[in-house]
Amino acid sequence: MFITLEGPEGSGKTTAVETAVKRLQELGYEIVRTREPGGTPIAEQIRNVILDKANTAMDPRTEALLYAASRRQHLVEKVWPAIKEGKIVICDRYLDSSLAYQGGARGLGVDNILNINLFATENTWPDLTLLFDLDPKIGLERINKNANREVNRLDLEKLEFHNAVRNTFLQLAKRYPERFVIIDASKSQEEVAKATLDAILNRLCK
Amino acid sequence: MFITLEGPEGSGKTTAVETAVKRLQELGYEIVRTREPGGTPIAEQIRNVILDKANTAMDPRTEALLYAASRRQHLVEKVWPAIKEGKIVICDRYLDSSLAYQGGARGLGVDNILNINLFATENTWPDLTLLFDLDPKIGLERINKNANREVNRLDLEKLEFHNAVRNTFLQLAKRYPERFVIIDASKSQEEVAKATLDAILNRLCK
Repeated sequence: MFITLEGPEGSGKTTAVETAVKRLQELGYEIVRTREPGGTPIAEQIRNVILDKANTAMDPRTEALLYAASRRQHLVEKVWPAIKEGKIVICDRYLDSSLAYQGGARGLGVDNILNINLFATENTWPDLTLLFDLDPKIGLERINKNANREVNRLDLEKLEFHNAVRNTFLQLAKRYPERFVIIDASKSQEEVAKATLDAILNRLCK
Repeated sequence: MFITLEGPEGSGKTTAVETAVKRLQELGYEIVRTREPGGTPIAEQIRNVILDKANTAMDPRTEALLYAASRRQHLVEKVWPAIKEGKIVICDRYLDSSLAYQGGARGLGVDNILNINLFATENTWPDLTLLFDLDPKIGLERINKNANREVNRLDLEKLEFHNAVRNTFLQLAKRYPERFVIIDASKSQEEVAKATLDAILNRLCK
């Protein structure tokens, strides 16, 4: 079982999923929590190139190819082995992030980005994608309140960009209704956590 | 004008092209000699990840995506600006190397690799590709004699691999006859240098 979490920074997805994971573990499920690049050394090295603030000359297509490369390595070294062992893999951000950020918001085209990611993933789609949907304004306000979090290059992009990301995510949810569940991340922490757990349990019982 | 040089290590392409470049400069042409990643900092960082001997866990598709990313950045920062200024860009290795190494020899499929590289290059094909064709056995013998050259991860691959690379290059030359010129690199340095200059002059006079 492969579950991915999508949605903007500040949407509270990390907290919500922590709660759900605890409950799932109590129910006896073996969970692997990961995020790209997921601690695999090669994928981390690639991520460092992407997020290095000095790399302002980075072309959007270069960035898209690097994300796909990092994704591939993470799949090979971490996701596929865990799924093979029967574990539930819950991954922060995956293919849909590239489709939304590079494909939609940076204007490279969703299908162009899908194309290189199908090469990278060999058509490995999530069984369930939880989209934590939130007005970007609210998300950025939440981030600024959190002093412990370092602001990275992507955070500095304009609000307009984040609106385009959100719209692409919502379009993807329409395009792939069988795997997408939209979680209203403007609600309270408790409500978001409950909706998250419900969506996962629903999928497990299918 | 965009000229690429392909063929195995030890095929003598560097020496041959140095001679040709000198003559072309005497004739008044402005030449930019480059190789991927061509000294652009981001492309160099990507190259370092690819060639790091510690990265033995690197998946072939990860490698192919990283080469495409490095290629993209090199095009954007170095090749396209020089072509726009009317210069002749001569580049050691380009798209065809990925097609031959990853597509052919590593078995990922030439068309799969072409696909991600068309995304990376936005269909930027060379005007002329010089293929320095050589039996891999002769190439490896030449490399071992040259004590000044550091052996990298790719050199360590088996001879069988290099034979597959060569065969794919020859297939590509058949597929794209309008841009490929095959140089017989088993001949003397003088003959190879002459054939190289002739091929470039022929293309310039077209």
